[in-house]
Amino acid sequence: MSGALHTVLVERLGCRAPIIQTAMGWVAEPSLVIGSSNAGAFGFLGAAVMTPDECREKILAVRRGTDRPFGVNFHSFQPGADQIVELILANRDQVRAVSFGRGPNAKMIGRFRDAGILCIPTVGAVKHAKKMEELGVDMVSVQGGEGGGHTGSVPTTVLLPQVLDTVKVPVIASGGFADGRGLVAALAYGAVGIAMGTRFLLTRESPVPDSAKAAYLKAGTDQIIVTTKLDGIPQRMIRTRLMDRIEKSGSLAMWLRAFEAGAAMKRQTGASWLHFIKAARGMTGHGDVPLKQAMMAATMPMLIQKAVVDGDIENGVMATGVVGGRISEIPTCQELVDRIMAEAHGRLSALCAS
Amino acid sequence: MSGALHTVLVERLGCRAPIIQTAMGWVAEPSLVIGSSNAGAFGFLGAAVMTPDECREKILAVRRGTDRPFGVNFHSFQPGADQIVELILANRDQVRAVSFGRGPNAKMIGRFRDAGILCIPTVGAVKHAKKMEELGVDMVSVQGGEGGGHTGSVPTTVLLPQVLDTVKVPVIASGGFADGRGLVAALAYGAVGIAMGTRFLLTRESPVPDSAKAAYLKAGTDQIIVTTKLDGIPQRMIRTRLMDRIEKSGSLAMWLRAFEAGAAMKRQTGASWLHFIKAARGMTGHGDVPLKQAMMAATMPMLIQKAVVDGDIENGVMATGVVGGRISEIPTCQELVDRIMAEAHGRLSALCAS
Repeated sequence: MSGALHTVLVERLGCRAPIIQTAMGWVAEPSLVIGSSNAGAFGFLGAAVMTPDECREKILAVRRGTDRPFGVNFHSFQPGADQIVELILANRDQVRAVSFGRGPNAKMIGRFRDAGILCIPTVGAVKHAKKMEELGVDMVSVQGGEGGGHTGSVPTTVLLPQVLDTVKVPVIASGGFADGRGLVAALAYGAVGIAMGTRFLLTRESPVPDSAKAAYLKAGTDQIIVTTKLDGIPQRMIRTRLMDRIEKSGSLAMWLRAFEAGAAMKRQTGASWLHFIKAARGMTGHGDVPLKQAMMAATMPMLIQKAVVDGDIENGVMATGVVGGRISEIPTCQELVDRIMAEAHGRLSALCAS
Repeated sequence: MSGALHTVLVERLGCRAPIIQTAMGWVAEPSLVIGSSNAGAFGFLGAAVMTPDECREKILAVRRGTDRPFGVNFHSFQPGADQIVELILANRDQVRAVSFGRGPNAKMIGRFRDAGILCIPTVGAVKHAKKMEELGVDMVSVQGGEGGGHTGSVPTTVLLPQVLDTVKVPVIASGGFADGRGLVAALAYGAVGIAMGTRFLLTRESPVPDSAKAAYLKAGTDQIIVTTKLDGIPQRMIRTRLMDRIEKSGSLAMWLRAFEAGAAMKRQTGASWLHFIKAARGMTGHGDVPLKQAMMAATMPMLIQKAVVDGDIENGVMATGVVGGRISEIPTCQELVDRIMAEAHGRLSALCAS
């Protein structure tokens, strides 16, 4: 019966538990990837917010901290994406998988395949799962609407079976998972494992400052909202005074916020407005969104960083899954993974005993 | 392993499958209750929209159609609630359970208990589950935010484990369920069964006219919306042209709709405005909502009836769970229950084999 937990995910990724620690910008840093991978899960480094130099350093840092396989998340439109791809390929002995949202084309997926690196995109809709399968990916990770950050509207209970009915590649379930009961439920649907973001954000090894972690712990499910005001696309955040102000703000205030952030970024980086706007367009993950939305998207990283890097929860925003509303403590990655596996074994025993 | 499906729900309700057919106004009519109960599920008659006389007739109709136990749904604020309670008690030999939203007090729950009738309220929030347990109910049915009609915002993947962690009484999972995979997933979380509305609405025995059933089948998950415009409380509906108009309508249009419906109801029933407003207040399920909202609530029954009774989908509204977006055929209740149980056995075998 315990064999039910030894899924094709475990088999192919070389981890011990069918649990993925998802890539979260500024959160899925080497400390967390090392923690989750050493604990038996499969950690993804969040390289989508890194420069190639940072990515090189941080891949090295992970390698120094663990000899377990791990993954790297990136997106095709980030500055220096090509160099990051080469970095991943150069580390193929330990980098076992890549993840991405909108991402590589079939040719690049073919390069990863030839290098023995699994492509495991995250999708939030049936049509994207289908598209990714057509492109030749190895598995898909399906994020139900209850997931954190940018998210869809179809919850895991509906989206997961829909995707399972549509694609032939193995499917990983995400959105709403935090414990061993959820893991067995995902397996019951036919998934090969679960992916968790918020749950790993709230571990000891997560680099998020304690002040922000405390704010996460404090938030119940009724303090978690979905907003389109941050960059025009629905995303789930912890409700704070700043979020309330942003939610109530009109179009002009949103433009001002976009320009302010742009100006701040210009000061930091010395970039021209043209460069900023170009980066803004890139950050939206594709090239064809309205400028205002692109500029708002460009402000997002600063708002998130303020909270999860600086611990400034008054001026930053905190992405979270709905499941954040029921998390109440900060275990180590090892405690978390051990507990989930023990609970999963227990639930399987109960289901299979009778 | 098949024993996992013989839960305390099956044991105590006397059905063969741990599956409840929920009470839906004008849908959970005798034909559906007979169909689902004969098929091995546990059907609830939707008496919350019936007069005592209708309720008497329809309980008799169910009794003529099946010798299986069944349940009755009602709410404490409906006209003639007291008489309906007496009817239920008088049929205790076959009425094995009652369900309700906001409902009876501890004293009435005690009367049902003394009569051997189980109280199984539906709750959409942890605090309501707790409250109901304190009042002495026997089980709770938890509806995740993906459920149909009036619904909360916390999805099943999060709300279900939260409630399981909070109450000691057996918990039934609802919101997002339609197949045997979902049933095993619910059991994995620790629930004792699933409750389904939309899935039973789309069976042969459901009295909903074919034109409306066809509209349900046609709707994908992206044609399902949550609105607060119908009666001020979030509820999930199929997106139709009427829903689009209602969604866009301002406060004045909503008042007009409320008054129009009130006038129509007055014509039908000969009631005074005072009576209408009193009924409106009653229909909201509690006594302390603003008049406008109460009047809007009073118009709801007519809008729903138009679609699910008259089959007029141009002028009616169609409540649905998100799961409606993945349902594509109309089986008999027997085919549905058999299929769910076979799939559940299959999933359990797969989980327990290895």
